[in-house]
Amino acid sequence: MSEETYDVVVIGAGPGGEAAAGRLSGSGLSVAIVEEHLVGGECSFYGCMPSKALLRPAQAVAEAGRVPGAVAGPLDVAAVLERRDRIVNHLKDAHQVPWLESRGIALRRGRGRIAAPNRVQVGDTTLVARRGVIIATGSLAALPPIDGLAETKPWTNRQATVADAIPASLLVLGGGVIGCEMAQAYQGLGSAVTLLEPGPRLLGREEPFAAEQVEAALRRTGVDVRIEAFAVRVDRDEHGVEVELRDGELLTAGELLVAAGRRPLVDDLGLEAVGLSADGPLQTDVHLQVLGAEGWLYAVGDVNGRALLTHQGKYQGRIAADHLLGLLNTSLVYGGPLSPRVVFTEPQVAAVGHTLDSAQAAGIDARAVDADMNSTAGSSFVGRGEPGTARIVVDENRRVLVGATFTGAEVADFVHAATIAIVGDVAIDRLWHAVPSFPTRSEVWLKLFEAYGL
Amino acid sequence: MSEETYDVVVIGAGPGGEAAAGRLSGSGLSVAIVEEHLVGGECSFYGCMPSKALLRPAQAVAEAGRVPGAVAGPLDVAAVLERRDRIVNHLKDAHQVPWLESRGIALRRGRGRIAAPNRVQVGDTTLVARRGVIIATGSLAALPPIDGLAETKPWTNRQATVADAIPASLLVLGGGVIGCEMAQAYQGLGSAVTLLEPGPRLLGREEPFAAEQVEAALRRTGVDVRIEAFAVRVDRDEHGVEVELRDGELLTAGELLVAAGRRPLVDDLGLEAVGLSADGPLQTDVHLQVLGAEGWLYAVGDVNGRALLTHQGKYQGRIAADHLLGLLNTSLVYGGPLSPRVVFTEPQVAAVGHTLDSAQAAGIDARAVDADMNSTAGSSFVGRGEPGTARIVVDENRRVLVGATFTGAEVADFVHAATIAIVGDVAIDRLWHAVPSFPTRSEVWLKLFEAYGL
Repeated sequence: MSEETYDVVVIGAGPGGEAAAGRLSGSGLSVAIVEEHLVGGECSFYGCMPSKALLRPAQAVAEAGRVPGAVAGPLDVAAVLERRDRIVNHLKDAHQVPWLESRGIALRRGRGRIAAPNRVQVGDTTLVARRGVIIATGSLAALPPIDGLAETKPWTNRQATVADAIPASLLVLGGGVIGCEMAQAYQGLGSAVTLLEPGPRLLGREEPFAAEQVEAALRRTGVDVRIEAFAVRVDRDEHGVEVELRDGELLTAGELLVAAGRRPLVDDLGLEAVGLSADGPLQTDVHLQVLGAEGWLYAVGDVNGRALLTHQGKYQGRIAADHLLGLLNTSLVYGGPLSPRVVFTEPQVAAVGHTLDSAQAAGIDARAVDADMNSTAGSSFVGRGEPGTARIVVDENRRVLVGATFTGAEVADFVHAATIAIVGDVAIDRLWHAVPSFPTRSEVWLKLFEAYGL
Repeated sequence: MSEETYDVVVIGAGPGGEAAAGRLSGSGLSVAIVEEHLVGGECSFYGCMPSKALLRPAQAVAEAGRVPGAVAGPLDVAAVLERRDRIVNHLKDAHQVPWLESRGIALRRGRGRIAAPNRVQVGDTTLVARRGVIIATGSLAALPPIDGLAETKPWTNRQATVADAIPASLLVLGGGVIGCEMAQAYQGLGSAVTLLEPGPRLLGREEPFAAEQVEAALRRTGVDVRIEAFAVRVDRDEHGVEVELRDGELLTAGELLVAAGRRPLVDDLGLEAVGLSADGPLQTDVHLQVLGAEGWLYAVGDVNGRALLTHQGKYQGRIAADHLLGLLNTSLVYGGPLSPRVVFTEPQVAAVGHTLDSAQAAGIDARAVDADMNSTAGSSFVGRGEPGTARIVVDENRRVLVGATFTGAEVADFVHAATIAIVGDVAIDRLWHAVPSFPTRSEVWLKLFEAYGL
């Protein structure tokens, strides 16, 4: 048994852990980061990055096809997969490790377990944390309790994002972000995809029009979308998988992808050693300190359940690091379910803050106004003819934005303007003077304010 | 001689005049709009719209070419020109006129001249304005005093944007926005372009790095860019044009495009009838009322020289209309040289507010920080590998943004977030909590704030 002492020990080298470790080491603290699998985390290897590598080529071809005079060819599937392999660096973290080394962050490979307050065990080594421990272990795909599901060893995001071959047919369980993105990616790459959503619509937390437009786009490219479709039993034989629905219908496919939520990675973390239990996400305060823990313990990223989004994990990592450093401005200001978020399907869905429904449910005197993303002069040239909608949700008492949603081709970066308006608490009567350039598609803001009556 | 009476008479049916007329009629006022040429104005027929139709196809092809797996073909020049013809509706305003009609706005074709305060003459008809007259006559290309230039009848934006054929070679006088855009468009459509800039660099009002990147991109595609190149004499014969430079060098080309600034259209407007003279742009107050004029007279758009940008003309049109309507919130809040603006070359240049130089010249304790547009995860998928830079200019006393510039592929819509931050006067310590989504290119904001030290 050896012992090493650092200012801070971070468990988990995904985006949140890396952000915290980098910020701490950049301020002169000694930091160790513990990683059992790959430095870079789920997002880099099995999440956001490879999924975008699978989705983007078809979207670039589609956009060129919408521009008269620009000639676009078919998709080169082999090149798409090869590029995806480079994006995940063939599942090696050799590109990430030098970043840690350059910052003097000690990487300890293995499973990190909390042995006592401010002490983390990795194999035979005890890492002592003078100032604090940050848990950033993330989440894994949850398997719903469907008869036979676990035994069939279905794909989760871990297999779907890095598959070497495209199955002739794919069943997707779950019509949330991952389910919709992977259904569209695989259909575009040549698979015949069936998407099963147990709820009343896809993308349940987003505006209904966003779900409708994504569903229509999936159907248009041939995805068999089944709404309120409950799988009750799953089998696998040498030909593939068979799924029985509640109404008795049998569906078969070459492969099955489960995209039915995530569970926080708190198992076997040694939480009981600091007075906690491993049931559900770690509860944190606004500085990301774990509530009720002995010692100085923080939790950032998916493991705290606040917002299962890479950028929020990184944000929380920065906040936790700054709090450990004793700085000011270390409270979470804007996060949780209101966080900005993007679904990278085509149409894309980029949203921040409330939907109209969630605002009203929160007791806000909310009013929504909509504009057609194709109503601007700029949409003659970009995203041309692809359906899309912009919506702002206004708090009528305070006359500020509390939510915004943009759908359409290549709208991912539109939401940041709304995020700044919301986080900056800018009155809409002032926003009216923030005049977008002609002919950019940002002029949809004018359409929104006109619709509002400004 | 007949007489017609309206609440408001607008001279010029370009974007500014249309915006004012639409807003006034929407509030129940009777409005006449006078147009000598085409309803829709310079921007719709000879400016922003056709120029983007000429530029965008090559950019869509380039973007597809940057995405591995997306196959892009060559440009179809005939299809580009055909699409451009549809964008300008073959120089007919039949698509714009119904918009006026649907709002009950009376269109009077002909040249409008001010006959007396609140009276406008069009042919044999006098239009009497009960509440006020709005001048929105715009601007025309200025011809610099170069020996022989006027006699050679060179192209201005009016010919370059709507040409039926691509000349084998093209000389462009002036490396501002129009010069750079048209140089790139024509080179991409097959012309051999030479761009002559008399000043020390292209795009003189933008950040130096923006000018350098655009210049490098032009050179890369074969444009012969000449900096500090003064034309002193121009001739034309049956083969084309010949330009003599100050150092004696002779350049020849099939056609010559003059893009050397604009002059306000104040000639023959009858300004002396309301106590004004027609020398230079009309001077206006913050409500767009013309200073020193008898009667109720407003000027919006290029003719007042505040900001020669379509969106600012429309903004001014809204302000003038609201002021005529007696509403609140009718002062220009953010415009003039600080207005947001986009150069639609590749790389695009999207900027708002001050450059570092202009901020320091204005006496602001300004500091600029830069980030590479390719430093985000999102840039693995969009604008991949194309050079680009983001810069924010911060007022160090007030800790707010006073300027921002984004360059790179498809960055036009990035600037609106900065516009909202500036117009909303959002402190940078608050902006730090406006977290962009992963993996969007908007994460360049994080890089900027890290570089700043947040």
